[in-house]
Amino acid sequence: MRTLADIGEDALIARLVALAPAGEAGEGPGDDCAVVDEGGEMLRLLKTDALVEGVHFLREADARAVGWKAVARVISDFAAMGGVGERFLVTLALPGTMEIAWIEDFYRGMGDCLAKYGAYLAGGETSRVPEGSAAVISVAATGSVARGMAVMRSGGKPGDGIWVTGRLGGSLAGKHLTFSPRVEEGRWIAENLRPTAMMDLSDGLAKDLPRLAKASGCGFRLERGAVPCSEGCDVVRALGDGEDFELLFTCPPDVDASGWGKMFPGLELTRIGGLVPESQGESLAGGWDHFA
Amino acid sequence: MRTLADIGEDALIARLVALAPAGEAGEGPGDDCAVVDEGGEMLRLLKTDALVEGVHFLREADARAVGWKAVARVISDFAAMGGVGERFLVTLALPGTMEIAWIEDFYRGMGDCLAKYGAYLAGGETSRVPEGSAAVISVAATGSVARGMAVMRSGGKPGDGIWVTGRLGGSLAGKHLTFSPRVEEGRWIAENLRPTAMMDLSDGLAKDLPRLAKASGCGFRLERGAVPCSEGCDVVRALGDGEDFELLFTCPPDVDASGWGKMFPGLELTRIGGLVPESQGESLAGGWDHFA
Repeated sequence: MRTLADIGEDALIARLVALAPAGEAGEGPGDDCAVVDEGGEMLRLLKTDALVEGVHFLREADARAVGWKAVARVISDFAAMGGVGERFLVTLALPGTMEIAWIEDFYRGMGDCLAKYGAYLAGGETSRVPEGSAAVISVAATGSVARGMAVMRSGGKPGDGIWVTGRLGGSLAGKHLTFSPRVEEGRWIAENLRPTAMMDLSDGLAKDLPRLAKASGCGFRLERGAVPCSEGCDVVRALGDGEDFELLFTCPPDVDASGWGKMFPGLELTRIGGLVPESQGESLAGGWDHFA
Repeated sequence: MRTLADIGEDALIARLVALAPAGEAGEGPGDDCAVVDEGGEMLRLLKTDALVEGVHFLREADARAVGWKAVARVISDFAAMGGVGERFLVTLALPGTMEIAWIEDFYRGMGDCLAKYGAYLAGGETSRVPEGSAAVISVAATGSVARGMAVMRSGGKPGDGIWVTGRLGGSLAGKHLTFSPRVEEGRWIAENLRPTAMMDLSDGLAKDLPRLAKASGCGFRLERGAVPCSEGCDVVRALGDGEDFELLFTCPPDVDASGWGKMFPGLELTRIGGLVPESQGESLAGGWDHFA
């Protein structure tokens, strides 16, 4: 029998999407968030995510920082659509040995991030996992984005430039727990740079750029020398470390990004390549596969 | 250090609710679902839930039935507010050894239940758990209920009758995987019986009735002889087995429930006691605590 480790995450998702009834056209699985058009001025965004002990955090980690991360990851996904988070639900599947103090600090960290980004905790659920099992924390949320401002992964065209915010690589040294989701940045990009496709970098550029290009039906050319690397990281780590939570997007070649520096002083915005026809693209190795 | 096993589920939730910013008044944690008033004719419902391998299902269980259960549990929570489910998100935290065929059958089961109740899968997320850890499946969903028809746990009054649908106990023999959420029944109750409080029975009447009474600021008197027991079950099992997924509700003593039998032939509707002032109530032992 074939197992998850045999086929990997992307192949699993492709198989599963075909098996359950998806929503109306345009709101199915496959992007950073699901997008639901209820007819109003705002489109509704839906997102679910999980943090697993031993995979995304260690029990020795600062619980308050893990709580921040649990919420910030989801807000980062909303930001990658040009949107914001609104109401959050949290499911805690925990071993009975989990210390109450840890869980309370985790909640305080969630609260820090929710308050900073104007979001709310609307509800939750707790369950036990068997002794010896990893704790699993799942966060689901609703968000919204103004109609016409939503940026999917799928709108990129050959000739578009490929851009990233910030610097990549080395997140495990701390940024993976303490990052600030690029909410204002995502909105500014949506309003000023006519982005054709956008996503947040969670599994590393080497994994996520091919996903964006594929969703857009394009290939890509990456200018490796242009990739902005975090201090102490080379381009291999910038491509492969993952959990950068920066924005990756494409936009037409003639956009004027000169307003960025004044809006977001100290934060890089870098053109790192361009989309090309699918047959002319390159490929990338590395990045994070949950099941590899 | 105190652990989860020391304090139990209800005490944990009470402590956590105080730690993170809740939504506007009336939509905080504490009921079957979160209720969000966006100003329209319909109130929005939000719910998250989890199924844990070794706790809620075994890997040897029919995966398609487990998928049904994952969705049906959440639809049951919406039904307990008088509402319906709409868009679903699923988070799979799985060991790499999980068989692809199992996961695909699980998705088919989710699809069966979504299709039967007119709901949609809007998105999902997958993650790995360390080898040896239990699989955790979290389902989050949006739903809706007509304004004025939403039934909380908190509106019960002394003098109200306490009622349940169906028969209780013995769900582990199969019903816990194959049950039909009481959606039509919940709506009929909301429209015809002026219910003051309602919830679904997931942890057993012995655990859930005190929760409903407490949320309503009341005590309760249970007529044990009136409790409808599943075939082969005594009242102890009817009170304590859990996972009945029947509706528990309270309504004024003068309601006319005579239309029930024609609407739902073969399904019992039974008055099992009444709410009393808090100081005059009894207590119950038994039922399911995730961390006990």
